[in-house]
Amino acid sequence: MINNKCEVCIVLPNNTPVYETKSWVVSLNPDQAYLGRCYVTLKKHKGDLADLTDSEWLEFADIVKTLEAAVRHAFGATLFNWVCLMNNAFQTEHAKPHIHWHFRPRYDHKVTFSGTVFSDPSFGHHYDRTHVKKVLPKTLGNINKIIKKQFS
Amino acid sequence: MINNKCEVCIVLPNNTPVYETKSWVVSLNPDQAYLGRCYVTLKKHKGDLADLTDSEWLEFADIVKTLEAAVRHAFGATLFNWVCLMNNAFQTEHAKPHIHWHFRPRYDHKVTFSGTVFSDPSFGHHYDRTHVKKVLPKTLGNINKIIKKQFS
Repeated sequence: MINNKCEVCIVLPNNTPVYETKSWVVSLNPDQAYLGRCYVTLKKHKGDLADLTDSEWLEFADIVKTLEAAVRHAFGATLFNWVCLMNNAFQTEHAKPHIHWHFRPRYDHKVTFSGTVFSDPSFGHHYDRTHVKKVLPKTLGNINKIIKKQFS
Repeated sequence: MINNKCEVCIVLPNNTPVYETKSWVVSLNPDQAYLGRCYVTLKKHKGDLADLTDSEWLEFADIVKTLEAAVRHAFGATLFNWVCLMNNAFQTEHAKPHIHWHFRPRYDHKVTFSGTVFSDPSFGHHYDRTHVKKVLPKTLGNINKIIKKQFS
């Protein structure tokens, strides 16, 4: 099920998941410019959304519901950007894309959490890839905990 | 089912669809920098992916399969970026987001179609929002036709 030439397959077991289902893992992105930013990664190595089964799609639909509700409740997010690209895998000759979603909560207000202020200066517009905020491991752990708590 | 304060609801009936299902409409974006770029828009006015029913998700899954296959066959696209944002709706005070996906085919090669050369200079990287190509209505019509043909 895993491909040992795929970076995502190799990294996936080392993540501390926020949440997981039979087919998907939700894990925080170390860049928290968009507070609560997560990866939602398929456990199996598949490279194209066209290859998802109906049950993988419906599990994903459940994650959309539960993750949005959790981050809305934890931090008051206003809306959510969902993005599936897989571009980087194609920088090598024998591309091994692995399905993962980028989940970016968007905020119409500043949020202070764990002593850090998070803001979304381009709210109402496309996410800004130069807006980066690598947080301390402790802060990342606290974000993980508060989101995870919403699932329990 | 439609909201007369929602721009998407108002514009939707005027589009010439490439393809449609019970719940979704696929229509070309006038910007064809990424050849075959489409909107995939929910017919009902709903503002959050969390509100989609299971059957709307599974119809969307079918569109992913058929649209990717059609554009791969028509133009030889290499991979596909799928993006659901809804940011612009939040530029007004009483936001009325309407679920729609941005579908951007990506190409590791140039494609000449209908007398126009299409290239993807940032292939292997995030799509470039400054890479814009408004094509002539005739060219747009030809793109529509060739994609539509794959569905028949």
